[in-house]
Amino acid sequence: MRAVVLTEFGEPDVLRISDINVPAPADDEVLVKVAATALNRADMLQRRGLYPNPFPAKHNVPGLEFAGTVVAAGRHAGRWKINDKVMGIVAGGAYAEYLTVPAEQAFRTPHGMSLVDAAAIPEVFITAWDALVVQGGLQPGGRALVHAGASGVGTAAIQLCRAMGVWIAVTCSTNKTQACRDLGANLVIDYTKDDFATAISEATSGQGVNVVLDVVGGDYVARNVACLAHKGRIMQVGVMAGPPASFNIASLMPKRASITGTVLRPRPPAEKIAVSRAFADALLPEFDAGVLRPIIDCRYDLTQIVDAHRHMEANANIGKIVVTIAP
Amino acid sequence: MRAVVLTEFGEPDVLRISDINVPAPADDEVLVKVAATALNRADMLQRRGLYPNPFPAKHNVPGLEFAGTVVAAGRHAGRWKINDKVMGIVAGGAYAEYLTVPAEQAFRTPHGMSLVDAAAIPEVFITAWDALVVQGGLQPGGRALVHAGASGVGTAAIQLCRAMGVWIAVTCSTNKTQACRDLGANLVIDYTKDDFATAISEATSGQGVNVVLDVVGGDYVARNVACLAHKGRIMQVGVMAGPPASFNIASLMPKRASITGTVLRPRPPAEKIAVSRAFADALLPEFDAGVLRPIIDCRYDLTQIVDAHRHMEANANIGKIVVTIAP
Repeated sequence: MRAVVLTEFGEPDVLRISDINVPAPADDEVLVKVAATALNRADMLQRRGLYPNPFPAKHNVPGLEFAGTVVAAGRHAGRWKINDKVMGIVAGGAYAEYLTVPAEQAFRTPHGMSLVDAAAIPEVFITAWDALVVQGGLQPGGRALVHAGASGVGTAAIQLCRAMGVWIAVTCSTNKTQACRDLGANLVIDYTKDDFATAISEATSGQGVNVVLDVVGGDYVARNVACLAHKGRIMQVGVMAGPPASFNIASLMPKRASITGTVLRPRPPAEKIAVSRAFADALLPEFDAGVLRPIIDCRYDLTQIVDAHRHMEANANIGKIVVTIAP
Repeated sequence: MRAVVLTEFGEPDVLRISDINVPAPADDEVLVKVAATALNRADMLQRRGLYPNPFPAKHNVPGLEFAGTVVAAGRHAGRWKINDKVMGIVAGGAYAEYLTVPAEQAFRTPHGMSLVDAAAIPEVFITAWDALVVQGGLQPGGRALVHAGASGVGTAAIQLCRAMGVWIAVTCSTNKTQACRDLGANLVIDYTKDDFATAISEATSGQGVNVVLDVVGGDYVARNVACLAHKGRIMQVGVMAGPPASFNIASLMPKRASITGTVLRPRPPAEKIAVSRAFADALLPEFDAGVLRPIIDCRYDLTQIVDAHRHMEANANIGKIVVTIAP
């Protein structure tokens, strides 16, 4: 089968398509013919050699999410039958024509949605839902601040918050503000013009937000703390700007605030299954009903994977970059 | 009545005893004749003008905990009757012969324990229990690291952990190691000789601890993260060493770890009542049975309050410094 195999690390042009064997499903796994995958920031780090697969496979194939069709099943993978349409998260291996995944970790695709569109759902919607709601404890009537509002995770977070009655502010650059407003964000802060901590204070009359979802780190950390309400939580899902220049940990104390680091990929299979099943139960009906939908910036074919990575690194996308494999 | 009233900030000798009016209890309060109070690190900060009472009173009287006798009660303070022996936490006012406290916020003293000894219980046992168990989520079979093991909070934490079947490591200076061992700490790390992160890694075979209770901050923060197990939590109850020199927030992510700041004093009355009632229900039987006991370093009379503060600032105490008022 065709797959992108990492044999050296570096710029996008290290990504090359190789011919490798179709993997065989274990007893609890299904074999999926991949219709499409989608890019994530973690893929950029992995390509640079900075974020290896925590569960090393025979071939180093990137790709953290997929949608496709079940073509074979292990003896104890009875949840699915041949030709079922499934999607899900994996620790790697989705830049390929076929992948194996524990049957319980896959979930059905939304009614009436193409597999190519569905491939843009798993990583960012699970990340946003798990960080904001499951771990962050957001409740209807709460308030959230989400950085990179036009990113895959950002566009998922805006929809999730609006669907559950949470007030959401986002940050983004100038040319992405309208897209964030169109998705329903209550406050859109252009970080090239305004300090987000000041904007949050003004918009909330100094009350602050219950949860901050941050992918930036760096000098955002101290300002994130300033944005928090009493007992507020910062969920750190990335650190694109590196460690903070200075951060006074005592600032967490008067608010009884917290900072929690979180990741999906290194979670053991049992945890991935648990979060996937809970996500599917809670949110697939919302996708069926059209309340939630993946926001797709553009689609590339697998043969254009180098261009797809370059596009993500240009930081111009609004929503997900999808890679079609066998649509 | 006699009370220590702060009228200027600075070294211990700014503490002077004045004669002020006995406060009148509100409808939901009781008036307590104070037998004893005890010192806390927060008192040192308050004396220096760095930690004002979050609920400003007519007189600036320090003192965050008390044990004493009910001598009057408001109309809706039916929980207690005259001559009941009570103890509890307050936001200030305990360096005095009388104080008022919401009736629901006070709890009974342990059977067979003097009021003077009981005064050493509330702040440090509630702090340790709330941080380690309620917020930190420690369970029997878990592992904890507590800094300043010979402090009031440290000596409470050791007893709590051992009573609930939690493995506990503490740090302290050389001349306090034996006291920590005698209280039952599973691992005592002399921070003047050994790096605690290395010691924790060796003692737990690299597994780390579920909760770190830290009062130090500074360059402990990065090492605290290194000590954590998967999904471990750092509870920051003080920052005696100031902000961290450098701390990479990304280090929280692979472990899905968190840092939570926590304080007791600024909590609104409803929260103080909730934590006090839960504490009393959970742990007073353990004090009655002698499983838990306050560790008292020494006792001063209220007239010796300057010496008492100097003693705490010398960092030589093992356990609590009690101040008797009307024993």
